[in-house]
Amino acid sequence: MTQLESARQGIITDAMRFVAQREDMDAELVRAEVARGRMVIPANINHLQKKLEPMCIGVASLCKINANIGNSAVTGTVDDELEKLHTAVHLGSDTVMDLSTGGNIDGIRQALIDASPVPIGTVPIYQIIQNVKDPADITPQMMLDMVEHQAKQGVDYMTIHAGVLREYLPLTTNRITGIVSRGGSLMGAWMLAHHKQNPWYTHFNELCEIMRAYDVTYSLGDGLRPGCIADANDRAQFAELETLGELTLKAWEHGCQVMIEGPGHIPMHLVKMNVEKERALCHDAPFYVLGPLVTDIAPGYDHITSAIGAALAAEAGAAMLCYVTPKEHLGLPNKDDVRQGVIAYKIAAHAGDIARGRKNVRQRDDALSKARFEFDWNKQFELSLDPETARSMHDETLPQEVFKSAKFCSMCGPKFCSMRITQDIRKMAETVVSP
Amino acid sequence: MTQLESARQGIITDAMRFVAQREDMDAELVRAEVARGRMVIPANINHLQKKLEPMCIGVASLCKINANIGNSAVTGTVDDELEKLHTAVHLGSDTVMDLSTGGNIDGIRQALIDASPVPIGTVPIYQIIQNVKDPADITPQMMLDMVEHQAKQGVDYMTIHAGVLREYLPLTTNRITGIVSRGGSLMGAWMLAHHKQNPWYTHFNELCEIMRAYDVTYSLGDGLRPGCIADANDRAQFAELETLGELTLKAWEHGCQVMIEGPGHIPMHLVKMNVEKERALCHDAPFYVLGPLVTDIAPGYDHITSAIGAALAAEAGAAMLCYVTPKEHLGLPNKDDVRQGVIAYKIAAHAGDIARGRKNVRQRDDALSKARFEFDWNKQFELSLDPETARSMHDETLPQEVFKSAKFCSMCGPKFCSMRITQDIRKMAETVVSP
Repeated sequence: MTQLESARQGIITDAMRFVAQREDMDAELVRAEVARGRMVIPANINHLQKKLEPMCIGVASLCKINANIGNSAVTGTVDDELEKLHTAVHLGSDTVMDLSTGGNIDGIRQALIDASPVPIGTVPIYQIIQNVKDPADITPQMMLDMVEHQAKQGVDYMTIHAGVLREYLPLTTNRITGIVSRGGSLMGAWMLAHHKQNPWYTHFNELCEIMRAYDVTYSLGDGLRPGCIADANDRAQFAELETLGELTLKAWEHGCQVMIEGPGHIPMHLVKMNVEKERALCHDAPFYVLGPLVTDIAPGYDHITSAIGAALAAEAGAAMLCYVTPKEHLGLPNKDDVRQGVIAYKIAAHAGDIARGRKNVRQRDDALSKARFEFDWNKQFELSLDPETARSMHDETLPQEVFKSAKFCSMCGPKFCSMRITQDIRKMAETVVSP
Repeated sequence: MTQLESARQGIITDAMRFVAQREDMDAELVRAEVARGRMVIPANINHLQKKLEPMCIGVASLCKINANIGNSAVTGTVDDELEKLHTAVHLGSDTVMDLSTGGNIDGIRQALIDASPVPIGTVPIYQIIQNVKDPADITPQMMLDMVEHQAKQGVDYMTIHAGVLREYLPLTTNRITGIVSRGGSLMGAWMLAHHKQNPWYTHFNELCEIMRAYDVTYSLGDGLRPGCIADANDRAQFAELETLGELTLKAWEHGCQVMIEGPGHIPMHLVKMNVEKERALCHDAPFYVLGPLVTDIAPGYDHITSAIGAALAAEAGAAMLCYVTPKEHLGLPNKDDVRQGVIAYKIAAHAGDIARGRKNVRQRDDALSKARFEFDWNKQFELSLDPETARSMHDETLPQEVFKSAKFCSMCGPKFCSMRITQDIRKMAETVVSP
């Protein structure tokens, strides 16, 4: 039975219990949310037997983040990817997607699943395309077989671009950047070559049976997501979202868990409505957004352009944020890019959690601020999202251990530290009030 | 006559005309906004005679950003600061504040003013304190003299913490981080030592006369701004804001231009209300915010935590965003930190401009996206906020010139480029439609 099927039957699974403890939630609430489809626990039965520590994705719990790693045909080895996995998990990534598209794809994936305590997601079409010369040579059976192959390996969730329908392709012709999802564009090419409907859509029932057998969670991909601000919120994007809503119900009928992928590139004032629209059209299935970037003019800094959109999405109720690294649009992220991306997204998710008033979230902020006021530099570093970076920036000008309890830093210097002066003021005020 | 006084008399000054051209606005609209106090043109008459290129700050125009530079007693030379000025202006900072607090303060300031095409702001109390042993030794006359001295040098706007009233100090005692403004805490210390009201407040009329004589714009400082999320939106913060509203009217009576400084540290869901409150209490005077940071847990990345808040403030109508660098809370920013801070804030301001639907703003996004779709890498770099960084990230894996027109990058590799596939799809679709 999948987590969804168990939940529906009123069963609280070990995974649900584990999740409830992690989230400081009632186990019955976790069960109810999973049963309702408003929360997923991506836990392939084959990964659950290994190192996986179950986690949940849903609006009732903390907002999560995902880090994409994986090689491309141009660059990346197994060891590189394992190091990126380690960096991402160490810094707090809640799930990791292996988007490898070149070389030893199977080996990288198995190594990542075996090593990972967090759910691993994939996009099966990336490997399918490796086995053919042309996208048109792909057959529906190859697609189903690849999903089963990866499911057996233990993949916890898979991006399936089943909502890119043939009739939606003309809706993208006037876009500036067309179709920017790799999976979406491949399905588009296949449909045009064959004059047939998307096989993920036509074979969705068979697909559900495989996904159900291993309890692989659907991440219904947004193959027609906007690739720039100008293309945001167009008919192509929302037509696909409607289809994803229809497929959500079908997957749920089969007992499969579902989340919905979201854009992409969206101006700030339209982010909230995108979250609300997903909720309405996709029956409250958890929304898993990629950014969105709120401007297109900052290649090299798209972890920032997108963290702004991601924070807005989190505040509006998105359940998971897929990170974007500084290398987006420019090249394959390396280990340091992974670090930058993960931290930017931990910030976005946490800011959203604060804004939504989620339980216990602000305690860490308050503890760090208290340490700051008390000039407890070491504690300040420990409580920060990236202690190593915080410490090294501080130590750039004041490396000696004595400065770890100094009542100032090099920003203002000793005479100008407002916090030190505030402490003096409080002491003075006490003197004034007493005798 | 100040810009405000000219505007009130119906005169369109050269500075207004220059601003109107830069902003693609009607000169009469600029005049009307300045007259109304909803826009400022910080242009000291002594800087206007040098290299200053007048600019405006107000909700009717594009959102602006400020970069803080300046040394501390612990680190920084004249050449360092000139280099930071150059970096900030080169990357698009609209104004620069010299917050030097140690060493050759006068020399650094004069060098910056002489070299700068953008308005230079200062916080006079930072130099006043250099001339005494203890904050309590400061006299009101020393304060007025220093303002006049800096005004003569050509400073375009000054942060004056005139709203930190004696009776507000007890409101900060239960805060986690107390008073975090350096100027605010110094005035607090002075008031407690003397049992007297804030001299900036008691001598405000005399101060106005000096500011008016050189047309120095007031940046009424928020000395009681929250220094952490927990202290946000408290009585201390808003009591001071009310006083700043009162002082705005008084400054306007004297013909002085005014903007209002804002927080600081504010959770996402309270940013908009802060902007609206400022507008109401301070009679539409331009709001100049510092961030705000939307979480406290990411020292080393506060350019990001604060860019999220700054973007929200910009969307809500803030007129200028004061940048925060990655070094915030940890040390004095160096040249690279200045770069990171400026770009993060250009992103925030631009995202806000897009969300507000300001004229012509999205053209650059669309042009860059078009270049992206057309694989015109060089044009893509040229149009980006930081061409140098974008180019170097791309070149990390594909440095050869031939890849500047390649139909892929190292992120996805040649086989997986969705934009290339989209172009193929469009060609295929044409073939299908035509005979």
